[in-house]
Amino acid sequence: MSNTNTALNRNDNQIDLYPSRIHDKPTITSRKDPVVYPDAGFTGPLSKEQLDFFERNGYLFLDSFFSEEETAGLKEELNKVWQESADRRVPEVIREPGGDEVRSVFAVHRDNEIFRELSRNSRIVGAVQQILGSEAYIHQSRINFKPGFTGKEFYWHSDFETWHVEDGMPRMRALSCSVALEDNYAYNGALMVVPGSHKHYISCVGRTPDENYKSSLRKQIYGVPDNDSLKWLVEQGGIEMPTGKAGSILLFDCNIMHGSNSNITPYPRSNVFMVYNSVENKLVAPYSGQKPRPDYIATRD
Amino acid sequence: MSNTNTALNRNDNQIDLYPSRIHDKPTITSRKDPVVYPDAGFTGPLSKEQLDFFERNGYLFLDSFFSEEETAGLKEELNKVWQESADRRVPEVIREPGGDEVRSVFAVHRDNEIFRELSRNSRIVGAVQQILGSEAYIHQSRINFKPGFTGKEFYWHSDFETWHVEDGMPRMRALSCSVALEDNYAYNGALMVVPGSHKHYISCVGRTPDENYKSSLRKQIYGVPDNDSLKWLVEQGGIEMPTGKAGSILLFDCNIMHGSNSNITPYPRSNVFMVYNSVENKLVAPYSGQKPRPDYIATRD
Repeated sequence: MSNTNTALNRNDNQIDLYPSRIHDKPTITSRKDPVVYPDAGFTGPLSKEQLDFFERNGYLFLDSFFSEEETAGLKEELNKVWQESADRRVPEVIREPGGDEVRSVFAVHRDNEIFRELSRNSRIVGAVQQILGSEAYIHQSRINFKPGFTGKEFYWHSDFETWHVEDGMPRMRALSCSVALEDNYAYNGALMVVPGSHKHYISCVGRTPDENYKSSLRKQIYGVPDNDSLKWLVEQGGIEMPTGKAGSILLFDCNIMHGSNSNITPYPRSNVFMVYNSVENKLVAPYSGQKPRPDYIATRD
Repeated sequence: MSNTNTALNRNDNQIDLYPSRIHDKPTITSRKDPVVYPDAGFTGPLSKEQLDFFERNGYLFLDSFFSEEETAGLKEELNKVWQESADRRVPEVIREPGGDEVRSVFAVHRDNEIFRELSRNSRIVGAVQQILGSEAYIHQSRINFKPGFTGKEFYWHSDFETWHVEDGMPRMRALSCSVALEDNYAYNGALMVVPGSHKHYISCVGRTPDENYKSSLRKQIYGVPDNDSLKWLVEQGGIEMPTGKAGSILLFDCNIMHGSNSNITPYPRSNVFMVYNSVENKLVAPYSGQKPRPDYIATRD
């Protein structure tokens, strides 16, 4: 199969460093971008040890990052958004597969004053700049609600694979910050990461259908890594499941393999996700050659 | 709604101490049977502390109960059963909901020499007799296969509720022994229990359809506890998820509330379950008034 579609529709000479959903067989290739930019001169709250840990493992968990008071304020706002979203039939509100319960609300950094402030929190932004070695902007934000009893799994994926193919994010120079707004236990669907997997790129199989995001946000079918590649990654790095109190944050690289199991416990599990992308890494045309996803999923200016 | 059906089809004067699937609203009542019979004179491998723990919490986890060598032998046999079952279209082989992968194989204590021996293991039988205060027989045995990547959840349930309603087990005087044949982690769908829940009986809503077992073993719809009762139980006792190496065993009371989340990790999770029922507690006609389930699910002599 030829690579002719990789350079279509773009106004620069960039080649596709991370092709996916093009070939018939999955491949594993090496990451072609740094993970951390320690020499870019940004100072912030992270120690050298923490930056090294992030470089090596692709994630960093900071327990009790927010005070109880700050966390309580965020949680109150989250409950408000949850209640308001129940009857809001807008694209930003995604529902559970096979159900009507709210699964995610997108663009909360744009539509909600409290979460806009959160996205500009100086300590978070400081940590982000230390890692990305540049200023950054919000590529995507969302609240994920994982209700008790019925919360469904999120299957394994690399965020970057989707952002690259469907949004046109050229390089791996972005990260997510997940703010836990409930206590996370090992048994209520906590996020699992594969340490070290961010240094490998799994090219997935299957072409992306038009307007894939309309179903993929409920249940992802394209951009799903194959079992053999997953097994290989886990053999290298194992699985970690960072858990902690409400108010903790998890920073994780755009290309780390992650997912979560279902949640049948009565304990809900809600998080705010904010994706920071380097200003040096702005979106180009999607590498799938298709129409970009809407702005509430992938910010374009 | 009257209780007239509870005494139908039985040749004794027993009344139904644990009615379920009869009323329109769920109820929580107290257990009417002892959990442990310390004065029955049986000796065995369990200490007084361990028996007290079981009485209080409804379960007991014994790490590395079997040696590595013993465990390897059992695992080899399990793999054999798994392979043989793939194409065996018999009632004993249950497949995943919405799939063809083998989920459980029943009656392995009856059909397989190695697992028959396991069910008669003197240390297990010793522990069982210490708890139940009598001799015991195998009410049910099965292997549960929870394959990597796709293993689905088992929703919360009390085994006793089903055994009582559908099999006619009169009293709470039975327990399960689950032998782990893979390492159990917090993230590969380990069994979760609600400590102390075995002292309460949740009466469920909804009448049992005929031959319910034909679908309930894939996905349980009747005999499912309501959210409010589950929340109440978890508020009292929390959730524990005993994990350990292959070769560990978990003993748990017939009425403890338990379940497990899905397993998207590459690590499979397989266990042998053996249910021991006191010889003083033999089955009568099902309390649903319906035809008993077949012998491979519930032993009758």
